Amino acid sequence: MSAPAVDFFYEFASTYSYPAAMRIADVAGAAGVAVRWRPFLLGPIFAEAGWTTSPFNLIPVKGRNMWRDLERITGAMGLPFRKPDSFPQNSLTAARIATSLPDDGKRAAFSRALYRAEFGEGLSIMDSEVLGRALTAAGVEPSTAIVAAGSEDVKKALRATTEEAKAKGLFGAPSIVTADGELFWGNDRLEQAVEWAARATSR
Amino acid sequence: MSAPAVDFFYEFASTYSYPAAMRIADVAGAAGVAVRWRPFLLGPIFAEAGWTTSPFNLIPVKGRNMWRDLERITGAMGLPFRKPDSFPQNSLTAARIATSLPDDGKRAAFSRALYRAEFGEGLSIMDSEVLGRALTAAGVEPSTAIVAAGSEDVKKALRATTEEAKAKGLFGAPSIVTADGELFWGNDRLEQAVEWAARATSR
Repeated sequence: MSAPAVDFFYEFASTYSYPAAMRIADVAGAAGVAVRWRPFLLGPIFAEAGWTTSPFNLIPVKGRNMWRDLERITGAMGLPFRKPDSFPQNSLTAARIATSLPDDGKRAAFSRALYRAEFGEGLSIMDSEVLGRALTAAGVEPSTAIVAAGSEDVKKALRATTEEAKAKGLFGAPSIVTADGELFWGNDRLEQAVEWAARATSR
Repeated sequence: MSAPAVDFFYEFASTYSYPAAMRIADVAGAAGVAVRWRPFLLGPIFAEAGWTTSPFNLIPVKGRNMWRDLERITGAMGLPFRKPDSFPQNSLTAARIATSLPDDGKRAAFSRALYRAEFGEGLSIMDSEVLGRALTAAGVEPSTAIVAAGSEDVKKALRATTEEAKAKGLFGAPSIVTADGELFWGNDRLEQAVEWAARATSR
């Protein structure tokens, strides 16, 4: 019997995807659960709900609390935190690059490095230098990867992941889906999702 | 030096206030933190955000996930769960009764019993029999309490708590506010809020 696995759906514009991306390998690894890294776009899903920006911008008191909460969470994890000047950032290029990378550790390493730049240093994830440094950190040659990320195949693959996310009932990020279709939303649900996946496999 | 205390703001229509109400005494007690039970109304706060109903109804996929999530959470806690036919329920009478009770254990006991009726048995919290049973469970004579809850003083006190909640930046329930003004939102933040309160006092 194969090891249990979860689909980790994340969005580069999403604040809580940052702590989730930084810790999911440890949480899942401790339970013997594999992680499939699934970058997707929330924009098209939010647009269908009639939102033109993040709910954290639509409801300012909720947004203020989110930033403070993220600061507390990253502080407790020993992660750097710096609020970017602009939020949410356009995550299209970042998501395409992540989609183009093989899910053998490189995609995860690039994603973690980019989240750290975005919410740990407050940098722009549209900036090709920032993207390039995250690629280098993942052991990938930047210029080749950035060109490859612009291909029709990659665009199609990202659209397909976003469609799949919507079909699975996702409405926010990060979200984790288990093999038996159970949906867990948020950095707060990592442990429960992984536990569910481990238990489902042992049944 | 007095023991640290937190303000536990809860709303009887709020689903996640159910598990929070059932476990906050244990979580806070273990850390030596006192809990002030603060029933309030989210309706006036939601109305200012332009919402006419719960966000869980406005975004159906989010609502579906919330009910499933609540089922998982209460299951893990060994609590009964049954989705009421109507959501959100009108919580005005319940909040007035809770406000009228002394915060010496009776308010907490009534609140827990009513949450269990609402989300554990799927009953209506507008039903005077349901309210009466929750009062009896808290050691309070129902008819006297229901009459007392209709007084101008109680109405004023509930409005004041709701105004205070808004002034403190609350946008959802349950929420916990520490003596130094730190706001924690959600059943998921009980532990962090209590830990914050305990640490703030020891500084």
